[in-house]
Amino acid sequence: MKGRGLFITVEGGEGVGKSTNLAFIEDTLRARGIDLLVSREPGGTPLAESIRELLLAPREELVDVTAELLLMFAARSQHLNTVILPALSRGQWVLCDRFTDATYAYQCGGRGVSTSLVRQLEDLVQGALRPDCTVLLDAPVSTGMARAQARGDLDRFEQEDLEFFERVRSAYLTMARESSGRYRVIDASASLEQVQIALAQVCDDLVACYPVRQ
Amino acid sequence: MKGRGLFITVEGGEGVGKSTNLAFIEDTLRARGIDLLVSREPGGTPLAESIRELLLAPREELVDVTAELLLMFAARSQHLNTVILPALSRGQWVLCDRFTDATYAYQCGGRGVSTSLVRQLEDLVQGALRPDCTVLLDAPVSTGMARAQARGDLDRFEQEDLEFFERVRSAYLTMARESSGRYRVIDASASLEQVQIALAQVCDDLVACYPVRQ
Ligand SMILES: Nc1ncnc2c1ncn2[C@@H]1O[C@H](COP(=O)(O)OP(=O)(O)OP(=O)(O)O)[C@@H](O)[C@H]1O
Ligand SMILES: Nc1ncnc2c1ncn2[C@@H]1O[C@H](COP(=O)(O)OP(=O)(O)OP(=O)(O)O)[C@@H](O)[C@H]1O
Ligand SMILES: [Mg+2]
Ligand SMILES: [Mg+2]
Repeated sequence: MKGRGLFITVEGGEGVGKSTNLAFIEDTLRARGIDLLVSREPGGTPLAESIRELLLAPREELVDVTAELLLMFAARSQHLNTVILPALSRGQWVLCDRFTDATYAYQCGGRGVSTSLVRQLEDLVQGALRPDCTVLLDAPVSTGMARAQARGDLDRFEQEDLEFFERVRSAYLTMARESSGRYRVIDASASLEQVQIALAQVCDDLVACYPVRQ
Repeated sequence: MKGRGLFITVEGGEGVGKSTNLAFIEDTLRARGIDLLVSREPGGTPLAESIRELLLAPREELVDVTAELLLMFAARSQHLNTVILPALSRGQWVLCDRFTDATYAYQCGGRGVSTSLVRQLEDLVQGALRPDCTVLLDAPVSTGMARAQARGDLDRFEQEDLEFFERVRSAYLTMARESSGRYRVIDASASLEQVQIALAQVCDDLVACYPVRQ
């Protein structure tokens, strides 16, 4: 019988290279023989992807902060219960582009939602589940924004101002300090080649430490 | 200066006549000179109406109970903060087709979600706000279902079985007993004419008791 798979999340601000490097981590882990499910948040199921669209669409209407927060956790609950948890218990590893730390960074750090409220929702939706490893791609806000803008139209979050993203970045760095056992912080302002050398090391460490029981 | 408006909700199972009679209550109150805003849940703003569509659409995917619950309260938070509260503080009355009691009836009564969890979300989203008056249209499940089915395609909730709707009905009747000061229970199996005689009385009572300060 296989053990429960590892749950790995990739975090960071806009345009730091999460999606690009998720694909690299995916290839690296598969090459090491890992049975992997790759997903993203908000999203990961048809219903949760529809919630993502509602969250990201720029709109005339002011979006209530609590409504935004509850939408994030609604999508997460659907994703977790119908996709992530079944995969982990089948023994698959799960690699996810953003997860709850993004809620702490964007809603608490960015918008000022209370951390204790997010903690309550996290406990409600996730029970004891937390990522086993979180890769934080960290870069100056201007670097990430320049990369994101080069891609075209900005979504509702990407339209926030620089101070918002500075608060997001510093919330991520605080979490990385406070949960240093789970976090691997990578300097994402370096070249893609250097970033990926560091990521290959993270993948090797994960594979080496994972007790494979077949 | 006007005082805060009254907040009136209309509740009941599928097809009991909420929408039909909401229009009657609206006409009656307007005829008595009340400045009224009419809305519905889930919905009432463009974002909340989009959440309504996600909630009602039948889908292949099993919908996680917690995701459904959080979507309901996300829509409610948006509706309350951008539409209902501003109207009430302008002195308008608000008349709403369903509100949080529907969550107690459908998610707790129907699906077995814990009442204390809904109470926590209610406090989070609403603070101290509760309806001033709730009209419960009560009819045997078979009566309402026959009326709803005559209307055509069934949404995701209307596709539940009879036991589900029996639990919904009995949850509503329990709330009406426990909050008898706020509830007005109307026999909705009677003819529309009789239902509306009873509703006209409710409207008269509300107008008579409301302390109008201009
Ligand atoms: N280390 C890097 N050096 C230079 N360019 C990079 C680096 N990492 C990513 N990029 C480029 O920056 C752009 C944004 O990367 P990517 O879409 O992966 O970021 P992201 O973090 O997923 O963004 P979002 O937050 O919008 O999802 C892409 O064009 C990508 O090729
Ligand atoms: N007391 C009544 N007697 C007979 N028919 C009624 C009565 N009340 C409503 N109806 C009819 O039943 C049908 C359903 O009514 P309505 O759409 O108002 O119900 P509803 O409670 O809003 O339903 P839903 O839960 O689907 O929103 C309509 O065709 C309406 O005309
Ligand atoms: Mg991306
Ligand atoms: Mg109706």
